[in-house]
Amino acid sequence: MITKETIRRVLQFTEDRDWDQFHSPANLAKSISIEANELLECFQWSDDDYDIEDVKEELADVMVYCIDMLDKLSLDADEIINVKMAKNEAKYPIEKSKGKSTKYDKL
Amino acid sequence: MITKETIRRVLQFTEDRDWDQFHSPANLAKSISIEANELLECFQWSDDDYDIEDVKEELADVMVYCIDMLDKLSLDADEIINVKMAKNEAKYPIEKSKGKSTKYDKL
Amino acid sequence: MITKETIRRVLQFTEDRDWDQFHSPANLAKSISIEANELLECFQWSDDDYDIEDVKEELADVMVYCIDMLDKLSLDADEIINVKMAKNEAKYPIEKSKGKSTKYDKL
Amino acid sequence: MITKETIRRVLQFTEDRDWDQFHSPANLAKSISIEANELLECFQWSDDDYDIEDVKEELADVMVYCIDMLDKLSLDADEIINVKMAKNEAKYPIEKSKGKSTKYDKL
Repeated sequence: MITKETIRRVLQFTEDRDWDQFHSPANLAKSISIEANELLECFQWSDDDYDIEDVKEELADVMVYCIDMLDKLSLDADEIINVKMAKNEAKYPIEKSKGKSTKYDKL
Repeated sequence: MITKETIRRVLQFTEDRDWDQFHSPANLAKSISIEANELLECFQWSDDDYDIEDVKEELADVMVYCIDMLDKLSLDADEIINVKMAKNEAKYPIEKSKGKSTKYDKL
Repeated sequence: MITKETIRRVLQFTEDRDWDQFHSPANLAKSISIEANELLECFQWSDDDYDIEDVKEELADVMVYCIDMLDKLSLDADEIINVKMAKNEAKYPIEKSKGKSTKYDKL
Repeated sequence: MITKETIRRVLQFTEDRDWDQFHSPANLAKSISIEANELLECFQWSDDDYDIEDVKEELADVMVYCIDMLDKLSLDADEIINVKMAKNEAKYPIEKSKGKSTKYDKL
């Protein structure tokens, strides 16, 4: 999915520009939200009539900042996703949640 | 970073619950923004005094929905990130942007 | 704070452009989030070094879409704020929450 | 729309709890985004099947933080909205934008 070379490129970009000083976890959290909303803007007035090139760029931006944050906090993406998926699987038992978008606390 | 098994687990979770019907690109964009803001909430009142366990969960949630969106739109994470990084490298030349958080259109 | 003339101007702007068709409650919720993140962008890399003119514009945009949503759903701002403030006052008793940013469920 | 008494109640709530220390403009911007996304969550999986009581609460929360920010920065809501509406009216001439959700830079 994402190769080591790509991750290195993303981190090198920051290092080359001496931007680590701006990349506090809080600023990266803001940045992920800001980019997520540029992605959302692709769907602001229509669910279906979106520009796929814009979507690709904005989704990439979200992931770039996720990579920065993982690095900043020395987190392993694979590990934290698996820990979370185990929780999700427990919170949403198949038999109870199948075909329903109901939130777990209202299931 | 993220293994094929993990991606399969994320996608299987949706398939097992028959939730693909809810996963329109627009709904996934909303979901990425919503989870990004739960991540942001970890830093709402302080930049430094955050709960790392909460951060791990919320960052994982953001990435899970990114994986869903990539799958939904048949996009390759590595490809779209590299295309975007090439643009970023061009927009932010090292000599001009080093040590500065100035946005490219004001450089 | 906000006069009736101003509200009328905001609603007239939409009517003149025949944009009511785009202003579903869901689209307005997306718009409020998108504008809130343009506001957040003013503080992306620094808490203190912001452009007050940008802040004024983006905060205005958030409020404009709030006015649109209130109108769309025939809600009264004063009423819903007072109902919510009564809840907040009960959730955050002064003696328990004074000087602390702790969320009510952890008080 | 929003009476002086309501604004006073919102500001008194903060003062009584000695929370002004947490209400930097940056933290309020984060808070507006966070609440905007709780509002967005009402429409996460469906545009039409929303809980109006939840919508009222979350929209109120967005406006409460807007009131806090206006106060913090000594801004007048009416003034900044009117300044922004004048810009919007110029950016979106009726004849060009009528019935179209196209962004001004692509009109």
